[in-house]
Amino acid sequence: MNPTEIIRKKRDGGTLSRDEINRMIQGYLDGSIPEYQLSAFLMAVYFQKMNFEETTILTDIMLHSGIVINLKDLPGIKVDKHSTGGVGDKVSIILAPMVAACGVPVPMISGRGLGHTGGTLDKLESIPGFRTTLNLEEYRKVIAEAGVVMIGQTAEIAPADKRLYALRDVTGTVECIPLISSSIMSKKLAEGIDALVLDIKTGRGAFMATEADAVRLSETLVAVGTMFGVRTIGFITDMSQPLGRAVGNWNEIVECIECLRGADVPDLMEVTLTLGAGMVMLGGKAGSIAEGKALCKEAIASGRAWEKFLQMVRLQGGDVAAVENPASYPRSAVSMEVRSSSDGFVGAIDALEVGFTGIMVGAGRMTVEERIDPKAGIMVMKKVGDRVKKGDILATLGTDRTGSISSAASRLEKAFSITAAPPEHTPLIRSFVDSTGVHPVPR
Amino acid sequence: MNPTEIIRKKRDGGTLSRDEINRMIQGYLDGSIPEYQLSAFLMAVYFQKMNFEETTILTDIMLHSGIVINLKDLPGIKVDKHSTGGVGDKVSIILAPMVAACGVPVPMISGRGLGHTGGTLDKLESIPGFRTTLNLEEYRKVIAEAGVVMIGQTAEIAPADKRLYALRDVTGTVECIPLISSSIMSKKLAEGIDALVLDIKTGRGAFMATEADAVRLSETLVAVGTMFGVRTIGFITDMSQPLGRAVGNWNEIVECIECLRGADVPDLMEVTLTLGAGMVMLGGKAGSIAEGKALCKEAIASGRAWEKFLQMVRLQGGDVAAVENPASYPRSAVSMEVRSSSDGFVGAIDALEVGFTGIMVGAGRMTVEERIDPKAGIMVMKKVGDRVKKGDILATLGTDRTGSISSAASRLEKAFSITAAPPEHTPLIRSFVDSTGVHPVPR
Repeated sequence: MNPTEIIRKKRDGGTLSRDEINRMIQGYLDGSIPEYQLSAFLMAVYFQKMNFEETTILTDIMLHSGIVINLKDLPGIKVDKHSTGGVGDKVSIILAPMVAACGVPVPMISGRGLGHTGGTLDKLESIPGFRTTLNLEEYRKVIAEAGVVMIGQTAEIAPADKRLYALRDVTGTVECIPLISSSIMSKKLAEGIDALVLDIKTGRGAFMATEADAVRLSETLVAVGTMFGVRTIGFITDMSQPLGRAVGNWNEIVECIECLRGADVPDLMEVTLTLGAGMVMLGGKAGSIAEGKALCKEAIASGRAWEKFLQMVRLQGGDVAAVENPASYPRSAVSMEVRSSSDGFVGAIDALEVGFTGIMVGAGRMTVEERIDPKAGIMVMKKVGDRVKKGDILATLGTDRTGSISSAASRLEKAFSITAAPPEHTPLIRSFVDSTGVHPVPR
Repeated sequence: MNPTEIIRKKRDGGTLSRDEINRMIQGYLDGSIPEYQLSAFLMAVYFQKMNFEETTILTDIMLHSGIVINLKDLPGIKVDKHSTGGVGDKVSIILAPMVAACGVPVPMISGRGLGHTGGTLDKLESIPGFRTTLNLEEYRKVIAEAGVVMIGQTAEIAPADKRLYALRDVTGTVECIPLISSSIMSKKLAEGIDALVLDIKTGRGAFMATEADAVRLSETLVAVGTMFGVRTIGFITDMSQPLGRAVGNWNEIVECIECLRGADVPDLMEVTLTLGAGMVMLGGKAGSIAEGKALCKEAIASGRAWEKFLQMVRLQGGDVAAVENPASYPRSAVSMEVRSSSDGFVGAIDALEVGFTGIMVGAGRMTVEERIDPKAGIMVMKKVGDRVKKGDILATLGTDRTGSISSAASRLEKAFSITAAPPEHTPLIRSFVDSTGVHPVPR
């Protein structure tokens, strides 16, 4: 099979066979197909898409490019969560120990922040000593002992995805549902999970800006997961404003600690409890989302979620004293307050702009090589719908970059729209997707 | 300027600036932009196209990637012809000396055959000793002395095109009007010509299979030429059956020799005289196509075209005795006749299939590395519209590949459709394109 012919076939809207997709992907991995052919192929896929069968085949090929972890010897239905990422999205860090505290094992493999969205690994690593680079033996040991483990992708898992993603990132071929789906699902299916809950974000701060695209992506992901025997459900959730109040790595860990200890940050906990409820349900510990939610709330109220978090921190080498006493953490050199210049209501907070402000202060990175300052970040003090008076603090910024703080503050201020009338309420959790279709969110 | 951003801009349908196009092309040439980014960019251009200004800018950048020959010191309006290529298209070899014999200098830079279409250089090189690789000094000397020269592209001319084309060829990004146009025109504009006649083929054996595409390509080429100050006109001509009777390199030279000596191969001479007339008109020696055609006919009838051909062969190192006595040329080891299995009319001859049969017998190549057998080829004995009886010879094949001749003959037979009724007559020269638009062919 000639790779040029395969590129042309996809370019002209054809449906590729397993052999043809395999020729492109394996050929790329073994060096017989050069990068310039694969990137042209990916751009052709960007325009012509892949149907469900092609997407499943691509996922399967990427999944089997590395090892597939087998956790069958561990008791329980192993459930993970995947989010398409957002600004202030620290859900995993509360959710994983909370769900584990309900008796559902959570083997979680997460990613790093890039661009305006943060990454769970960067957040966890702001905890002194916390190791996200466990090898597979350690991974298995921690999940067996604690029922929860949170690590980064290892070189053994879906190596094809790592190489493909690096190429997509520099060739304008990231935003493509079949490619996104196979990238996400090949990694998740390799973890050894039995079920998966997806959090597909929509809105200005999300990867999928429109709700229609988010729904289409969810449907594909759910269908692929189901096809591979992993029960998969998805929630479409809003990312038009940052989730919770903290943006920045240690900031967000502190917010998670507070929530795990019972604080209520309404939007953050609504998402966390809903996704957690879905995991508990899939894990066989609840018969409905409502029942799952009650179990999750009880896990927090009883202190078991917090204890589970401390156990995981300890097993992964983290400094338990630091998380028990967050005030002892180093502080940024400078801080600044952003205040409202008028009376009214917070009509909108542009999550994308907040994310970019986070990068300016050192809380995020534009390229994979950049270092992150774990202390740096933003606290959002007024959320959408809040009434504000002129002079009220909208947000605070902290950074060691003394030269950047003023321009960051000015950018952050522009992210807030102050309106005379309160904004219309839009639901945070938009819809629910399972293998039968798209539904209203079960309560 | 980030190349990924430029790719994304084109991918999303944006119009690129000169700086952005330059960044991609120059970056590719200087190694700062890797092939995998350029190929993704080319595929994005394939889908999103380029507008006329972008096409002009791309042509200009490619043109100035190498030297631009200046022939201003030579008298006369220098005119070249470019054809998009076809099966049996040997027009250049009759036309260049014929037009030069009318007093219009023809500095012609041609290409090689690839796939089912033949190349003028391969045909000329079947003449023993004929050198198509003159350096620029020799090129200038031959055109000054003979008023006609026919060479291949040198490394100094539009090197960007050479590298871009090689990448397009293996990434499925060839069939794209802005890329085709800048490729053709950057080379032609570098030759030092004042005017250009285009032969845009349409039909099964052509690069542009539909007439609508052929017209669109012509319009773009004419507009680009005009923009660069080179008077450019185009003819849309039929390539649904092979042009003339000979397919194969020396075969075609023999047919050219016969035509230059006054033989009439109707379709071949109709195209040759029409294109030649356009060149003579642009060259200022005729006031109309009709007048130009009369001059071209006279150049042949008088023997001046033939003498001009002999002079060019001599100046470019070719064996004049061989062309004066073509029967002395070596013959293929085996030959075979393809006969009609029924009575009727030749309804169609699939030029694409004839071209592929040519490759099977060694007359063409599928990859640039393959060697061509100059002796090998096909003679088409019955053309579209001819009445045939069962057993009549439709075509003959000659090759040294004794093992391939039967399957080649069987493929060639299938290229002929024999119908009960005569086919409808379709005009060979479809339309005429100049800077004012598309017109009926001037008579």
